[in-house]
Parts: sequence; structure tokens; C-alpha cells
Amino acid sequence: MPARRLDGVAVARVIQSELRPAVEAFTARAGRPPGLALVLVGDNPASELYVASKLKSAGETGLRADIERLPASATLAELLRVVDRLNRSDAHDGILVQSPLPEAMGPGADRAVFDAVSPEKDVDGLHPVNVGRLVQGRAALVACTPSGVIELLDRSGIPIAGSRAVVVGRSDIVGKPMALLLVLRHATLTICHSRTKDLASVTREADILVAALGRPAFLTTEFVKPGATVIDVGTTKVEDRAMVERLFAPGSKRHAAFERRGSLVLGDVHPSVEQVAGALTPVPGGVGPLTIAMLLKNTLTAAQLRAGR
Amino acid sequence: MPARRLDGVAVARVIQSELRPAVEAFTARAGRPPGLALVLVGDNPASELYVASKLKSAGETGLRADIERLPASATLAELLRVVDRLNRSDAHDGILVQSPLPEAMGPGADRAVFDAVSPEKDVDGLHPVNVGRLVQGRAALVACTPSGVIELLDRSGIPIAGSRAVVVGRSDIVGKPMALLLVLRHATLTICHSRTKDLASVTREADILVAALGRPAFLTTEFVKPGATVIDVGTTKVEDRAMVERLFAPGSKRHAAFERRGSLVLGDVHPSVEQVAGALTPVPGGVGPLTIAMLLKNTLTAAQLRAGR
Repeated sequence: MPARRLDGVAVARVIQSELRPAVEAFTARAGRPPGLALVLVGDNPASELYVASKLKSAGETGLRADIERLPASATLAELLRVVDRLNRSDAHDGILVQSPLPEAMGPGADRAVFDAVSPEKDVDGLHPVNVGRLVQGRAALVACTPSGVIELLDRSGIPIAGSRAVVVGRSDIVGKPMALLLVLRHATLTICHSRTKDLASVTREADILVAALGRPAFLTTEFVKPGATVIDVGTTKVEDRAMVERLFAPGSKRHAAFERRGSLVLGDVHPSVEQVAGALTPVPGGVGPLTIAMLLKNTLTAAQLRAGR
Repeated sequence: MPARRLDGVAVARVIQSELRPAVEAFTARAGRPPGLALVLVGDNPASELYVASKLKSAGETGLRADIERLPASATLAELLRVVDRLNRSDAHDGILVQSPLPEAMGPGADRAVFDAVSPEKDVDGLHPVNVGRLVQGRAALVACTPSGVIELLDRSGIPIAGSRAVVVGRSDIVGKPMALLLVLRHATLTICHSRTKDLASVTREADILVAALGRPAFLTTEFVKPGATVIDVGTTKVEDRAMVERLFAPGSKRHAAFERRGSLVLGDVHPSVEQVAGALTPVPGGVGPLTIAMLLKNTLTAAQLRAGR
């Protein structure tokens, strides 16, 4: 029996529909909608797509969203000046600087920019104060992808407390905050990474397995306990025909999509896991839409906090 | 063969002897020693002991250490005024408010006080900024007990990278920062707690097992994989004769100590684990002295950072 499909698009739609009246109430009270500033540096096509879809969802939910564009040649100092202006803007409650930044900005640029965003407008949950408050179980603004995963589990009736949860990947944006949220929700939590020995034996302990490695189709059936819930956070654009043909039979929907576009976005989870897992998020259409929904929710929360609720 | 005994007293002595020349160099450069302020509210006898031993070690290492005493009847506002004064003191690089605070101060008092300590003087590593920076692998000031455990493992030649480490307990002061440090040091990390099912089956996976539950002698041999390194962070004062007699034979050293004092400080690890573990920290004389050594090290680090190195 194939795994139950956890539909991120549907859950994100429900969250957005719940946000709408709260956004309306805020707007009526404050005389302005909650405001989100999206900062986009350069012309990375994937970033353009992400930002466009955030803009669209914000509009549907009644939020104000503005794009601040900087050319790929912008310096870190110029970007920090934009962040500083947005920190002081009354119209903007949330600031999201789309990563990755152009490499020319230098290796520490991402971190310098995330640190510069005012903690109260940090809708990405990446400022150290917000991360520290997450550890201490009292965060107002939490990284969007991990908090989206928790929403998806809750709204799908998958119990977290008392479960064994395994997170593969320890990034600051997904792996570590995901692990912390699962601990706060009373899972027995294991975090794995590139240095983990015999990874499959560890991931097979999981009732809830979160894959956030960024290695397409890496987690095959032997990594998954039968019946486990598998959350696939990875998204890698694959243009390698041989790989796509190993994964998808000619004539299948995904194979046809590859033929049409010349590329395919793949998760970290191998397609065959569908035959073993109890529940599974698709890529695309799983975690991605939830990340956007939580960004909107964080923007509303930031607006409410700034207005003193 | 009984477990190798990891001697915290000896390792702490080595760390302190390494600190001494660095403290002297700072003092020569700055014209004053690194300064630590210990704030003690009320007259909890255990807190008196801890503070006295911190004061003694600081003196031996060449640090200045001052005690600020407040009566048990002090209000939170009074305590926060003392913290504020110490935040502005040029002579003090580190501030440690000894917990627990008197219950009369209210349930959120500890948190309010830890938040009030300037992050750059937060030698306890409990301010959210320092906790967030720990998650992000760039902390200057880390909670003393967990960083002491890492020092003990390193200096005892016990490899962390690639090991399976299990932390039992998820407090803000020990469990969570311990888990984060082990992940940063490339262990495959599991964190367990009161909601963990079949705890023994999880702890038996550990190459490195850190017990921080605060339940005396709770972890018996069936919780430990033969040959594992067991770090006992728990310290509970036990006055229950029946319990002591179940654990220690009449005529044994510990039984005699109980007869003399009417109480015994016990760790979370059952004495019989000595027959199964590969290496084990005693209580007392294991993690405790390291906590103090790391407090001194943090004070020096804070002094160096405040002075611009």
C-alpha cells in the first residue's frame, strides 16, 4: 500500500484562510496591513520564483508585500543600508533577505545581513536572539520551514510527543531549528549529518524522519522503517538525464515533465520510499507551500507584537 | 574490569594552570585582573558552598572575584538593580547570579535575571544571544557544565566526532547546550527526556552517555552499552538511609561518609554501572570541578573580548 500523501498545498491553503480574518482585524485596528519587505539581490532565477510566489501568497492573505531589488553588483554595505532603512520603516513588520546572496559579497555576507535585521522584524527566525529564544522554548519568530513541518504533522494527526524523530542535516535554517522544535514537542530526537556512521541504521529508528540534506533521491527504502512518516525538505534542481531515467520510468508523469522542461526538482527521498513509508510529503507540493504560509504567519505575529498585540 | 575513572579534579587543575599565565598577561596589559561578580541571594547552604568554591578557584587563578549578597527578602527589582550596576562596572567582566533564586521572587525571576545580564558579561552562557550564537557555532560564552564535559572528553582522549552520543535531560542549563555542543563536534546526537519511551533501549545506543536528569542512581547497568563513556552530571543530596543502604554496603567508603554526615551527594548513575562502562565520571569529583574551571575561562574570555583582545 503506497504511503499516505501529506498535501502541503492543501494545508498551506487552510493556514492562509485562517490568517485572513486575523490580518483583516489587524488592518482595521492599525489602519494599515501587516507589511513584509522582500529583499532580492541579483537575478538568480530560483530566487525570482521564490520571491514571486511569496508576493502572491502575501497578497492573497491581505498582507502588504514590497520587493526591494538590488543589482548583483551591490556591495554588502549597500545591502546593509537597505536593511537599516527597513528596520526603521513603520510600514514593514517583517524583513526577508532572499538567500543565497551573490558570492561576490563575500563568505560572511549572509550571516552579517541576518544579524543586521532587527530581531522583532526577523520573520526568517535567523537572528541569534530568536534562535536562543527558540532553544529556551519562548520564541515568537521561528524559522519558517521547520515550523511549517510541525504544522503539517499536527494538522495531519501525526503524534510528535513520545515519538522517535530523526533529522538528517544540521543547517542553521532547517536542521537545527527542526531538531529543537521536535525536542520542545517532546519527541526523542536524533540529529544526523555527514559524519554519522551507518546512517541507515539510525534513520530506521525514526517514527518521524525529516530529510534535509540537499542530496536528490539519496534516502532509499533501506533508510526508512516501514510505516514511518517521512518529511522531505530537500529540493534540488536536477538536469542529469541519466539520473532522472534511473528514478522515473519513461512515460511516467515526472519523466514527461523532465522531457518538457529539461529539468526536475527532486527531494532527498527516493521515489521507491512511497512503498515503505506510512506517510510522505511530495516534492514539490509538500513542505514548500508551508514555508510560505509560515512566513505570512510570522509577519502577522511581528506586526501584532510591534503594535503591542 | 571496572570503568576507567575520569578525574574531573585533575583535569580542572590542568585547565586552571593553563589559565594562570593568560590571566597574568591580561592583568599586565590591562592594569587590572579579569573580574568576576558572584551574586548570591538568600542563604541557601548549597549555594553558599558553590560560591565559596568558585571564589577560591578564582583567587588561585589570579582573577578578581567579588560576592554581592542580597537578603532572602530582596525583591526582583532590587536584584535587577544590582545586575544593572554590575553591567556598568568596569572592574567586572563576568556576572554570575547563583541559582536557585528564593521562590518568593516569583516563577519567572531566574529568566528575567539571566536576560538582564549583559551578553558580553554572561559567563553562564544563558542569555538568548549567547544561546543563539551557540546554535550557530560561533559562541564566545557557553554554559559552563556542558563545555566542561567537552573539555573532559577531549583531554581524556575520548573521540566525539562520529560517535553516537545520548543526552538524558533537556534543561536550558545542561541538556540542551550539551546536545548542541555534541552536534557541533560531529557526534550523532540523541536527546531523551521524561517523555521518552523505553529509555534504556535509547541510552544503550550511546558511545557517550550524558546523564543530566537529577534522579539519584536512576541509570542502572541496563541503560549502558558495555564499554560506553558515561558522564554523570546529576548531583542530588540524599538523606534517605534506606536508599543509601540499597546502594552502598555497610563498611564501604560512601556508606561511612553517610554515617558521618547524615547525607550523601549522589549522581544520576547507579554505582553498579562502574562494572559495565568503559569510562565514568565520579560524583563528586567529576563534572563539578570542570564547571568551575570553565567559569574562570569564560571570565577571562569575556575580559579579553571587552578589552578588544
